[in-house]
Amino acid sequence: MKLTPDQLAQFNRDGYLFFPGMFSREEMQPLLAAVPEIYSEYRPEVIREKDGKTPRTSFAAHTYNEPFAKLGRHPRLVEPVEQLFEEPVYMHQYKINGKQAFDGDVWQWHQDYGTWMRDDGMPTPKAMNVAVFLDDVTEFNGPLLFIPGSHADGVVAAGHDLGTTSYPLWTLDNDKVRELAEKGGIVAPKGPAGSMIMFSGCLVHGSAPNMSPWNRVIVYLTLCAVSNHIRQYKRPAYIAHRNFTPIDRLPDDCLLRDDIKGLPWPGHEVDIAAMREGDGPAKWTADVAREADQRMPVSAA
Amino acid sequence: MKLTPDQLAQFNRDGYLFFPGMFSREEMQPLLAAVPEIYSEYRPEVIREKDGKTPRTSFAAHTYNEPFAKLGRHPRLVEPVEQLFEEPVYMHQYKINGKQAFDGDVWQWHQDYGTWMRDDGMPTPKAMNVAVFLDDVTEFNGPLLFIPGSHADGVVAAGHDLGTTSYPLWTLDNDKVRELAEKGGIVAPKGPAGSMIMFSGCLVHGSAPNMSPWNRVIVYLTLCAVSNHIRQYKRPAYIAHRNFTPIDRLPDDCLLRDDIKGLPWPGHEVDIAAMREGDGPAKWTADVAREADQRMPVSAA
Repeated sequence: MKLTPDQLAQFNRDGYLFFPGMFSREEMQPLLAAVPEIYSEYRPEVIREKDGKTPRTSFAAHTYNEPFAKLGRHPRLVEPVEQLFEEPVYMHQYKINGKQAFDGDVWQWHQDYGTWMRDDGMPTPKAMNVAVFLDDVTEFNGPLLFIPGSHADGVVAAGHDLGTTSYPLWTLDNDKVRELAEKGGIVAPKGPAGSMIMFSGCLVHGSAPNMSPWNRVIVYLTLCAVSNHIRQYKRPAYIAHRNFTPIDRLPDDCLLRDDIKGLPWPGHEVDIAAMREGDGPAKWTADVAREADQRMPVSAA
Repeated sequence: MKLTPDQLAQFNRDGYLFFPGMFSREEMQPLLAAVPEIYSEYRPEVIREKDGKTPRTSFAAHTYNEPFAKLGRHPRLVEPVEQLFEEPVYMHQYKINGKQAFDGDVWQWHQDYGTWMRDDGMPTPKAMNVAVFLDDVTEFNGPLLFIPGSHADGVVAAGHDLGTTSYPLWTLDNDKVRELAEKGGIVAPKGPAGSMIMFSGCLVHGSAPNMSPWNRVIVYLTLCAVSNHIRQYKRPAYIAHRNFTPIDRLPDDCLLRDDIKGLPWPGHEVDIAAMREGDGPAKWTADVAREADQRMPVSAA
């Protein structure tokens, strides 16, 4: 899969590309079927909503779950990013965001690269989010909201929100969001399960709570150029991976074939070793926020 | 303004009718201009969000504000409801819901008549909500969500939610919402400022928070058939009016004419007297909820 010159121009202008129905329902089925088991585990990788029960996001499933490992090595996700970056990529982060029916909470307005830079010491925004819908995404179940073109100024100032939801986030202030949205508007790509979005780590985005009776599970891969690997190990290894092994792509039909395996995830022993050293959420708290504050403002390369 | 047989059939089937652009921007302008002053007053009629600052809803502006008084007597709102009920109507409730940019909070899934029945002793659902958009309503600023056809079963069981937001509400449980939405789906009427919606007091509805930088102010009139007036005075008179005077309609161009006045609101002295008797929010608390619980379940006529 190669991006066309038109798609490249569109990505540079808007900061994202939307591919409705990129995967078939048949390809998505094993992933969707694996979600309940992943969410049922009370392990640090599974973050709950404020109610302490509803799964909000689950990290690193590609390192232990077969269908999600295959998705993490899928050429339809990996190839376009390698094309854009002109080099191999590794998996910086891998999450399954639940946005569960009725209880899925807001994701405030933010830029992902803001976090990767401040918390993980990622040198430049040469890392890409690729989102794959496991459920149909409609206007009613909390679709992703983008401000087109908001990636163009690089990283903007942000405050570390530790209270609104159960997951800390570097969030933009209202005046900045208003300024960007007055210029670029807001869009909400909607489509069937199997749709895919590539979006810049600098694109300002968020999503409203899900008050509908329908789940909205989306998988997010963050594919980082190998040369741009993180320099700072503040966050747990299951959130910000320290395994910079280039992703070894699988065949295009891998999700439909039992004879192709995604596991073991190449190089995962690096992250396992880091976790054994005792890294964990407890280390990732107020002192990290304070240090990052002192580094701000920083312009992105 | 008369509803056609098709519109009447549609209302009976879906529980609502949507009239995009029913009023011009010119007609809406004096209303929108009056909102900041109304919201700036710290009086009991203005309910704030949980932050204690952001205006959530304001009651009874038709009794003291000239443009809102005119809207409350506007034939485009009043005539179709009189037609449906085949009798004069009075103003049971009048509110301006703020749903302010960034801070406007959720309205959980509920039926309005559930409240009017349980709290106000309104005998039957012969009361109609009429909503008028003062701002453009989009998918991004927390539009009203309806479950079409959910009015058909009358009042369904509900619990009194005193905690989620700053305003108590009889809310439906998730299983009931799922059951109704699987049958009727969800719709979100969107349109320019000046659009109008008529919807049944039994229609299940709600709205998500507004995380956009754009306000979404909507005025809601509840027009009740005079014969169906409330029998129980538990809530403050500025929320559930005790003035059953039939609404005296103004000319169709009233919002554009300075020589036509909406004030004084006919019969308002009844509500003023009730308020002087000491009614207020303090009386409308847990004991009311308990009493209403004991009256449930009740089928609507």
